Amino acid sequence: MTGSGTTSYRRLSVTERRAQLISAALGLFAHRAPEDVSLDDVAAAAEVSRPLVYRYFPGGKPQLYEAALRSAADDLELCFAETPTGPLTGRLAAALDRYLAFVDQHDAGYSALLQGGSVAETSRTGAIVDEVRRAAAAQILTHLSVPDPGIRLRMMVRTWISAVEAASLIWLDEDKQPPLPELRDWLVDHFVAMLTATAASDPQTAHVTRTALALEPSDGPVADLARRVAPVVEGASHLF
Amino acid sequence: MTGSGTTSYRRLSVTERRAQLISAALGLFAHRAPEDVSLDDVAAAAEVSRPLVYRYFPGGKPQLYEAALRSAADDLELCFAETPTGPLTGRLAAALDRYLAFVDQHDAGYSALLQGGSVAETSRTGAIVDEVRRAAAAQILTHLSVPDPGIRLRMMVRTWISAVEAASLIWLDEDKQPPLPELRDWLVDHFVAMLTATAASDPQTAHVTRTALALEPSDGPVADLARRVAPVVEGASHLF
Repeated sequence: MTGSGTTSYRRLSVTERRAQLISAALGLFAHRAPEDVSLDDVAAAAEVSRPLVYRYFPGGKPQLYEAALRSAADDLELCFAETPTGPLTGRLAAALDRYLAFVDQHDAGYSALLQGGSVAETSRTGAIVDEVRRAAAAQILTHLSVPDPGIRLRMMVRTWISAVEAASLIWLDEDKQPPLPELRDWLVDHFVAMLTATAASDPQTAHVTRTALALEPSDGPVADLARRVAPVVEGASHLF
Repeated sequence: MTGSGTTSYRRLSVTERRAQLISAALGLFAHRAPEDVSLDDVAAAAEVSRPLVYRYFPGGKPQLYEAALRSAADDLELCFAETPTGPLTGRLAAALDRYLAFVDQHDAGYSALLQGGSVAETSRTGAIVDEVRRAAAAQILTHLSVPDPGIRLRMMVRTWISAVEAASLIWLDEDKQPPLPELRDWLVDHFVAMLTATAASDPQTAHVTRTALALEPSDGPVADLARRVAPVVEGASHLF
């Protein structure tokens, strides 16, 4: 290990070495709770010595954990950066496919970070998580073409993002059931249902919803949801 | 302070004194972040000496914080213990009124606990928060009269509970806007929308939804939601 390490010390630039160490750390933090990852593990995974890890991260494990989280957050923020064309449900499904693939690939780390009470959790890691949530909310509001969203619409979008996080944690907790495409479709249905229910009491959301529905194709997910909902509510004619 | 403290030392039993200290601590933790509450503050609020606080809570602030949280959790778990009669939306609204009143009365403490990254957060406080969530989910499933809920229905209920938490945090963050009754009604609409959207892809949820809708009055919240949704979706006849 030391031999190959010495060789690669020369080959990589400072930036490359730092990126390599973060990548090795992220690979470990993805599948284990932070308390189960040691600096020795990171050094072994990166095929370098422990002192070299300390040279790049003098703050030790907390600093490396934060750097790995920072790197993961940058990836996650890109998930919702979808081209703002086509039906809204298609864009949401594409963003969710990326987000849920991230959850799948970083299962244990995602749970440890979001479930709270983690030893690695600090106000700084909390701020990084919040930044991802804010970025996702801003992206979704861009897709809804709302330059100045009111409190109801912002609350709806932020609440849905929390619902996506909660559903992801439950999905991990339930041994990754149901299959990802079904979870994604359910979360899209969930968004459509929340948007429509919020539109019922907020004129701005009503405007956004009408515009979004007009762009949905008659063979798309919203039409499919409407078809599947019909037999559920048809017996309750006293309400409709 | 010492004088009145000495008097009250004699008057209260061990159980009463412990309850009084927890109550004083909860009053402080409710409106300040845990790091901004000292044992001296608790002693002053309870009108006792600092050594007396230590005699009851030798573990100091972490132990007192956990005891205060335990007490708050017991209150919160009772929120969803509603008589299982009448329309579902009425029961949800009553439970939410209690839950949201708790959020209002414990604003800073609720935010500090649930926003993560709090210095007082440990795996034990995390477990207490999880216990409240599990109790709320179990109560709601009881109201839905499902003895053996499948994964979709469980996921829907747990996701809605996360949405209630997220909406509560956003509400605190937005200077307690909109007014509580409007937030409660929106969360009830949200439940109905999620239940119906989940029913579209899960037979068990469809059965539960049909049963619940049959009990809703024609002048109740579901009929009102349907009336308010109609003008939002009427332009999208290609989807329905």
